[in-house]
Amino acid sequence: MSCVFCDIVAGTAPAVRVHEDDDFVAILDIRPIVRGHTLVLPRRHHVDLTDTPADTVAGMARLGQRIARAARASGLHADGNNVVINDGKAAFQSVFHIHLHVAPRQDGDKLSFAKGLVVRRDPDREATAQILRDALALLPD
Amino acid sequence: MSCVFCDIVAGTAPAVRVHEDDDFVAILDIRPIVRGHTLVLPRRHHVDLTDTPADTVAGMARLGQRIARAARASGLHADGNNVVINDGKAAFQSVFHIHLHVAPRQDGDKLSFAKGLVVRRDPDREATAQILRDALALLPD
Ligand SMILES: [Zn+2]
Ligand SMILES: [Zn+2]
Repeated sequence: MSCVFCDIVAGTAPAVRVHEDDDFVAILDIRPIVRGHTLVLPRRHHVDLTDTPADTVAGMARLGQRIARAARASGLHADGNNVVINDGKAAFQSVFHIHLHVAPRQDGDKLSFAKGLVVRRDPDREATAQILRDALALLPD
Repeated sequence: MSCVFCDIVAGTAPAVRVHEDDDFVAILDIRPIVRGHTLVLPRRHHVDLTDTPADTVAGMARLGQRIARAARASGLHADGNNVVINDGKAAFQSVFHIHLHVAPRQDGDKLSFAKGLVVRRDPDREATAQILRDALALLPD
């Protein structure tokens, strides 16, 4: 069974990386709903919340918080973030390698949940990722 | 400064409780978008992801996973769950005591993000909470 997120973790499929450590890789979503929309992927393949170890879920949340804080501190100037795990096809999960979304938000960005389903184009994904990397590097623990 | 979630934690404001432990209280959302829509509240007051300790965020996610698994195993027969932290007013946070949403989903429930903003009425909140409590009690660690 091929898995695009396992391929990204292995480096055999392309992705713009925001962060990586021993347990997780964070990448820009290829279909962003907002600029800086990031996915936290565990390196190990798990499907959803039914099979992912609790420690892995906790680690995804910790890293998601760091990225959310970085998005506020960064040149993206986020005023907030939606941090989301879609657990199962019934909940809009589309890649069955568990992941956590961080969607940086702006006051007045007019993103409703309805509009949220519309994919926005990021004209410079690499620049967006660098902004987040820089803010992560500067974030206190 | 009064905080309705602090009042719920203290027991001076009413709520239908799904779970409680030393660190967290889980209640049914008073404005559910789906049946069984549950909020995980830390007992201690924190505002959002900028001030909440990482261990608390991790603990919210661990308990959110347990509730998501319970919703699938329960009489609610969830096929999946949206697990969400709205961090900041820009991200739709409405009560400024951090909380994590678990929204149990069904295949074919036709809930879009747009429809998701419509609040559904639960005709029997106590029965819904009991279904989740029963499933949590039976869930393996
Ligand atoms: Zn995978
Ligand atoms: Zn409070």
